[in-house]
Amino acid sequence: MSDRLIYLPLGGAGEIGMNAYVYGYGKPGKERLIVVDLGVTFPDMDGTPGVDLILPDIAWLKARKAQIEGIFITHAHEDHVGAIGHYWEQLGAPVYARPFTANIARRKLDEHGHPESVVKVVGVYPEMIKCGPLTVSYLPISHSIPESAGLLIDTPEGRVLHSGDFKIDENPVVGDPWNEALWEEVSKDGVKALICDSTNVFSRDPGRSESSIGDAIADMMKEAKGMVVATTFASNIARLKTLAIAAQKADRSVVLLGRAMRRMVEAATEVGILKGFPPVVSPEDALQMPRENVMLLVTGSQGERRAASAQLAQGNYMGIKLKDGDTFLFSSKTIPGNERGVIRIMNQLSELGVDVIDDAGGKYHVSGHANRPDLARLHQITKPQTLIPMHGEHRHLREHVKLGAESGLSGIVAVNGMMIDLSGNQPTVAEYIDTGRTYLDGTVQVGAMDGIVRDRIRMAMNGHLIVTLIIDENDEPLGDPWVEIMGLAETGRNNAALVDVVEEDLSQFVNRANAKTLRDDVKLEKELKTIARKSAQGEIGKKPEVTVIVSRLG
Amino acid sequence: MSDRLIYLPLGGAGEIGMNAYVYGYGKPGKERLIVVDLGVTFPDMDGTPGVDLILPDIAWLKARKAQIEGIFITHAHEDHVGAIGHYWEQLGAPVYARPFTANIARRKLDEHGHPESVVKVVGVYPEMIKCGPLTVSYLPISHSIPESAGLLIDTPEGRVLHSGDFKIDENPVVGDPWNEALWEEVSKDGVKALICDSTNVFSRDPGRSESSIGDAIADMMKEAKGMVVATTFASNIARLKTLAIAAQKADRSVVLLGRAMRRMVEAATEVGILKGFPPVVSPEDALQMPRENVMLLVTGSQGERRAASAQLAQGNYMGIKLKDGDTFLFSSKTIPGNERGVIRIMNQLSELGVDVIDDAGGKYHVSGHANRPDLARLHQITKPQTLIPMHGEHRHLREHVKLGAESGLSGIVAVNGMMIDLSGNQPTVAEYIDTGRTYLDGTVQVGAMDGIVRDRIRMAMNGHLIVTLIIDENDEPLGDPWVEIMGLAETGRNNAALVDVVEEDLSQFVNRANAKTLRDDVKLEKELKTIARKSAQGEIGKKPEVTVIVSRLG
Repeated sequence: MSDRLIYLPLGGAGEIGMNAYVYGYGKPGKERLIVVDLGVTFPDMDGTPGVDLILPDIAWLKARKAQIEGIFITHAHEDHVGAIGHYWEQLGAPVYARPFTANIARRKLDEHGHPESVVKVVGVYPEMIKCGPLTVSYLPISHSIPESAGLLIDTPEGRVLHSGDFKIDENPVVGDPWNEALWEEVSKDGVKALICDSTNVFSRDPGRSESSIGDAIADMMKEAKGMVVATTFASNIARLKTLAIAAQKADRSVVLLGRAMRRMVEAATEVGILKGFPPVVSPEDALQMPRENVMLLVTGSQGERRAASAQLAQGNYMGIKLKDGDTFLFSSKTIPGNERGVIRIMNQLSELGVDVIDDAGGKYHVSGHANRPDLARLHQITKPQTLIPMHGEHRHLREHVKLGAESGLSGIVAVNGMMIDLSGNQPTVAEYIDTGRTYLDGTVQVGAMDGIVRDRIRMAMNGHLIVTLIIDENDEPLGDPWVEIMGLAETGRNNAALVDVVEEDLSQFVNRANAKTLRDDVKLEKELKTIARKSAQGEIGKKPEVTVIVSRLG
Repeated sequence: MSDRLIYLPLGGAGEIGMNAYVYGYGKPGKERLIVVDLGVTFPDMDGTPGVDLILPDIAWLKARKAQIEGIFITHAHEDHVGAIGHYWEQLGAPVYARPFTANIARRKLDEHGHPESVVKVVGVYPEMIKCGPLTVSYLPISHSIPESAGLLIDTPEGRVLHSGDFKIDENPVVGDPWNEALWEEVSKDGVKALICDSTNVFSRDPGRSESSIGDAIADMMKEAKGMVVATTFASNIARLKTLAIAAQKADRSVVLLGRAMRRMVEAATEVGILKGFPPVVSPEDALQMPRENVMLLVTGSQGERRAASAQLAQGNYMGIKLKDGDTFLFSSKTIPGNERGVIRIMNQLSELGVDVIDDAGGKYHVSGHANRPDLARLHQITKPQTLIPMHGEHRHLREHVKLGAESGLSGIVAVNGMMIDLSGNQPTVAEYIDTGRTYLDGTVQVGAMDGIVRDRIRMAMNGHLIVTLIIDENDEPLGDPWVEIMGLAETGRNNAALVDVVEEDLSQFVNRANAKTLRDDVKLEKELKTIARKSAQGEIGKKPEVTVIVSRLG
């Protein structure tokens, strides 16, 4: 069998979040592998109640641990680096990253007791990292976090470009400006495949620069009467700087609130990329200042329940209380699915008399991802033999292939688990890998299909009814079945207690049951469950989840 | 004590949905009352898992049943009429509505076994309905459902106008066009208070007419190659007509899919307001037609899991299968909070190769509510002494008061439970009424604060652990405690079974417990619960909900 070049998304292709991509080269099954990004996605009550974090399922990688040459992190967003601490031990390969990303990755590894030395700080192109048959180089690119990078991956089959998350921004305030010459240079000898960010493929206008919103924000802060609060992603260092400088222009001192906010500013300062950031004051000092001289920079732009924004909206955070005449700016866009949380905060702020300003259709926020015309520009510069969209839901990937086709590119929709063989002139699907999600639940990693979360959702939808029955040494019932309920109406149709009605129905069955049934745990449990569900259905119009516990004294 | 005029929102003020407003006149506590609308709102997994429907808490009204003169339904949307079947018996007053609304209300009452005669069909202004000291008249107004109405309420303290849900549409395709002269006429002798829709107070441009989108939709349907599917609210009869006529122009036969879709068209046809609607064909007949000659009009525009849209996206509905080359139009706006469900459908359609078209920023959809300039126009026509915003979250109500202030109106933010005394020259808060929500859960009405749904959410977040212990006649433990789990990881930190670890910890306690503890159910339960939670926390990093069942043989 001949060597082949493979691309395998384990996360991020068919969803926005949880990015984890694999490239490999070698004999089928023996490829030397690199992993690009190890991100997380966030749980929600709809599908993953009680889950702490969602990680890609890396069973395929774990089984090939010895083949992994390295883990390359493109940038420090949680959906790209968030799983590194949880998974590093299971993969064991060196982690490569640019300084700011490395700083964040090391903090995550440190939380899991892994040493700093795991992470290798790398420079950018033309610096090359040799990984067996693959050679990797970091291509600086602009995005909503400093030191983002695309990857150049040279292989015996040709050059692959992995865009990473990016936008085309020639003046990004902090971090690398868009460098068209660089992308032209790396593309001039031909590109085998472009694996490309798809997030904003439905946004028809060209993207706007981070630097385009500073004046509007400064004007807004000057006009505001009381205290100003601004929220955005803490990792958007450029935005933090834009907001802080606007505050300075409006004669307002900056206060950082929220753990992530302080941590990100600290990391950016440590690696020396946050220059010209105004001095900050403590919350305690801010309390002594006139309100019109204060700007709070806070976490929680997505309505997260425990973040600083949510606590301020509830009335108090570290002694600071918002009131009538204050202004709250969402310098952010609400990620679909987070609307309820954000709107809750907006209404709580309204109750306090605080004026809320949202991104106002782009006046106070720009996206960190390339819009449709910007994607087309990268297509035209790189002219790949194959376009493979990534970082998108299915609709984004499909639309991105269509966009490529408009300028004559051949593309393929490759979703999580679809291993693409890039070796020939046409990409082919080599294999379908079982993939999915792993939940961090408390301190335990559980499989998404293990049924644990399914059972929780069932209890949430249907309530839980517990039947206990004691069977004595002679296989006779000792007393009547006993029923407890949780999450169910206490009284139903007949105004009688639900537990009494169900117990009565169960007792009738038990008293009539023959010896064989009473000796058979499986049958007994099944019958008791069926009767309990039917009885509840008649009484309250709802079939609960039922747990039956038969205790045998024998 | 002198007579007073009161306004009391029980639902709809501080939220969008679940409208229920009360007006009254008389001696404090003895007012003769009318109820305006009895709507529902819809549950979600975040806050109300397993709940079937959310109704306003009408305890205050039930306690004053004898004082209620009538129930006035402004229009047939679920958030205005949805609770009528569930609550009519508890209130017992006649229900007034225009013919189309009456048709829908009667269907709901019929489902609960109440006779048709409960609903009195009324004509519009100048027809008047006398309700004790109050006189009510229906003022036709345009909205996204036929025969919407505002209410004129004449009282000894002056005239009150209740806008109902409305937009300013001079050519609404179906239903009453905006009638400025009518609103001028009823306002000319002075308006005591305007209680006014606030939904779109943040939309800065004037609203657009339903008739403005027909051509764009027809063009889209002509250009589409395969089958076209269009979804919108079934109750938006005008939109159904717009879509059906567009289909006709594009040489496509119309198929109605979804129970609500068929029911609404039936109701509109019965009352004679749906004229010029093209003939429809059955799904079976559609299967025999070329795809490019079919347009399906389907329910489920908000991503509802069991609606026709969701089933089509999953691959099959009544034998109809969508495929590559078909087009799916959302002629609708996603209500905040429903994004996840809608996006799920969009991605499933993408997987089938179906092109999805959303409202495209207004090209294929217009709102049914008055935008900011339209609200200002109604303010200017009616010139109320007091403006009371309704039908909005807190932020909408507050912004609406501000909008009124811009043209010199005095306004007040009155949220659910805030009884406003309108008698004097200035509105005052007369009383705060305990109000809230009632859940329809299966067939039972339970209070939102009863703790039932709270327990379900806790089980969903934390899992459920059940401890059973048998105590014999001598108050000695019979065997060891037994543990069952639901919604929890089976193995934890030490790779041992969670239930074994917890049972071991519980056994140690039970074996050491003194006779006094073993005799004391409350204490025993508390201790077992505490140990089980702590033990689980150590093992899986999560404190489950615990139910302890002690069975005493004594």
